[in-house]
Amino acid sequence: MPALNALTTPYLLLDPNKMLHNSERLQRHLDGLGVMLRPHVKTAKSVDVMRYCFADAKGPITVSTLKEADYFAEHGYTDITYAVGIDPDKLPRVARLNRSGITVRVLLDSLVQAQAVIDFVARDGVAIPVLLEIDCDGERAGLRPDDPQLLEIACLLDDKQLFAGILLHAGGSYHCPDRAAKEAAAEHERATAVAVKERLALAGVLCPIVSVGSTPTAHFARDLTGITEVRAGVYLFQDLVMAGLHVCELEDIALSVVATVIGVRPEQGWIITDAGWMALSRDRGTAEQELDQGYGVVCDMAGTPYPDLIVSRTSQEHGTLALRKGSSAQLPPLTIGSKVRILPNHACATASQFSGYLVPLEQDLVFWPRVNGW
Amino acid sequence: MPALNALTTPYLLLDPNKMLHNSERLQRHLDGLGVMLRPHVKTAKSVDVMRYCFADAKGPITVSTLKEADYFAEHGYTDITYAVGIDPDKLPRVARLNRSGITVRVLLDSLVQAQAVIDFVARDGVAIPVLLEIDCDGERAGLRPDDPQLLEIACLLDDKQLFAGILLHAGGSYHCPDRAAKEAAAEHERATAVAVKERLALAGVLCPIVSVGSTPTAHFARDLTGITEVRAGVYLFQDLVMAGLHVCELEDIALSVVATVIGVRPEQGWIITDAGWMALSRDRGTAEQELDQGYGVVCDMAGTPYPDLIVSRTSQEHGTLALRKGSSAQLPPLTIGSKVRILPNHACATASQFSGYLVPLEQDLVFWPRVNGW
Repeated sequence: MPALNALTTPYLLLDPNKMLHNSERLQRHLDGLGVMLRPHVKTAKSVDVMRYCFADAKGPITVSTLKEADYFAEHGYTDITYAVGIDPDKLPRVARLNRSGITVRVLLDSLVQAQAVIDFVARDGVAIPVLLEIDCDGERAGLRPDDPQLLEIACLLDDKQLFAGILLHAGGSYHCPDRAAKEAAAEHERATAVAVKERLALAGVLCPIVSVGSTPTAHFARDLTGITEVRAGVYLFQDLVMAGLHVCELEDIALSVVATVIGVRPEQGWIITDAGWMALSRDRGTAEQELDQGYGVVCDMAGTPYPDLIVSRTSQEHGTLALRKGSSAQLPPLTIGSKVRILPNHACATASQFSGYLVPLEQDLVFWPRVNGW
Repeated sequence: MPALNALTTPYLLLDPNKMLHNSERLQRHLDGLGVMLRPHVKTAKSVDVMRYCFADAKGPITVSTLKEADYFAEHGYTDITYAVGIDPDKLPRVARLNRSGITVRVLLDSLVQAQAVIDFVARDGVAIPVLLEIDCDGERAGLRPDDPQLLEIACLLDDKQLFAGILLHAGGSYHCPDRAAKEAAAEHERATAVAVKERLALAGVLCPIVSVGSTPTAHFARDLTGITEVRAGVYLFQDLVMAGLHVCELEDIALSVVATVIGVRPEQGWIITDAGWMALSRDRGTAEQELDQGYGVVCDMAGTPYPDLIVSRTSQEHGTLALRKGSSAQLPPLTIGSKVRILPNHACATASQFSGYLVPLEQDLVFWPRVNGW
């Protein structure tokens, strides 16, 4: 195995054992609740990651872009849900995939989109199954459960045999620090989904798919009766935001950015590395949490955090390490050329700054590419 | 020319006329001050952008990564300054370029780095010219002008004929909203550089290169006596942070992200597009300015801003448009499928989320690739 110290920094290091532990933990939890997992590939964007974690290399998966859908389809995946509201101009790309024999479901929350899909399918001839997006917490997209259009859209699609079910995302759970609030968010997500399903059933519309998910609610759900599948993405890598939400421990975080010390300024209390925001991303997701982790937590190359050392500032290719305000710790004796590992605030954002992962596997260090872009 | 509306969103649109206007404006200003411009390619990372703006396709340029250096060298550029403190492990990559007949200068601010370069060159045999980084405003890296090590390092390098000069970056100018403060920052950057040059001259060390720069100080400098070159990067595209600093007007911004409306929620005051933080980046550089622009200013496809409409929230592939707080404007009548253009907070960060630019040129729409990564 090439020494990790010999590679050009910054680079993304992925710990496959931690990732597998994260994968198996959620799988066990959902197996216990009797519901299928549909992992979201938007975090890793890597077929190698998915094959490492899941026996079935055909899906089910969730994607956030049609580029992910194209890429996973090329690699043999056949059961794909595209979980971003559909832009009608993207329907030809969806149809091309469905024509090749795989299933890509689209998501929508308006009559205009539903009519666009119906009209497109009527012209094109290949079915595009549709999920209706339901808003359970006012955070983003979706129809409110009591919206009168909900029945209208579902009936319209069902009439054309394009209605596949409903999808919810409890994005508000990212703001729930305590366990009871996350459990409540999960139960609210479930209960909202089931209420909508029952409302549709009364109108004679069946929901083959009742899909819920977010990494926090997936982990804190205690009952998923009535749900057919759960989506979660960032949990495979975990990150500081998830640790701050007590979804995982710091030592579960499988992803880190390896950086080199390129400056030491003891008079300022700074150590400067070559991992700036271009490597770490501008994500400051922990800024609103109880413990603000700056742009990341600094660890030694074995993955042990230095006491109170965070990335306090970044510019494009510079990251300034400093102790947390009020810390009584000492700056560690890092010198020019020292390597460190930085745990990211938000794994989805940090990973997106790179073309792929370096993964220590048995005696080797392998590169797993990502499919970035649209 | 393919219709801009027919392309898969989100994508990066680059207006070559605005870019050329920005390029020529700074060039004229620096020509007037009698100093050379060494543009920083870290924003555009594109040889097509550089060839469009500059007659000389050999440099001088500034780079922020060795990947940029490799790429521009492959495209014929021969005069390159790598303006991030050197990691000694990267010296073999620098040497490989210098061995091929081009010049890549490295930057450092410590005895350890200087000795590493000297030792490497002694073993390797190919000269690596060195710039000494001077800190003029306590913002990031560099030796303070009065640091006793400054002379020691310069003499050591000069003795081995590796000393090329000094480099400063007035990063503090990004926090100077008013004209007088920016002019003062530019003059302080210049005066600090000249003082260090004179201090070195007294010790018998000459500075062939005296390099200063930041986009704000480059534009607001009134006198650059004693300076040999100015570096600036983001000015070619400009962005909302630069507009907030009055370095440019909103209409000078050459870069925008084209997005499609995928949801309309009038009851929330929201319009949802398919450009989330994956497209716009997480950069919130205007948050600390007088006018917080959220994640970007929303324009129609002709580039005219909608009154008070900004991207108020983002998730990975969703951008939520809303009116500024307190606005008396109305939400524009955008519907599913409508296209908008979003002006970025920080062009360097937003551009880095894409593999390249779509550029309307004469009758065509061309793709100019970027060189991302390290």
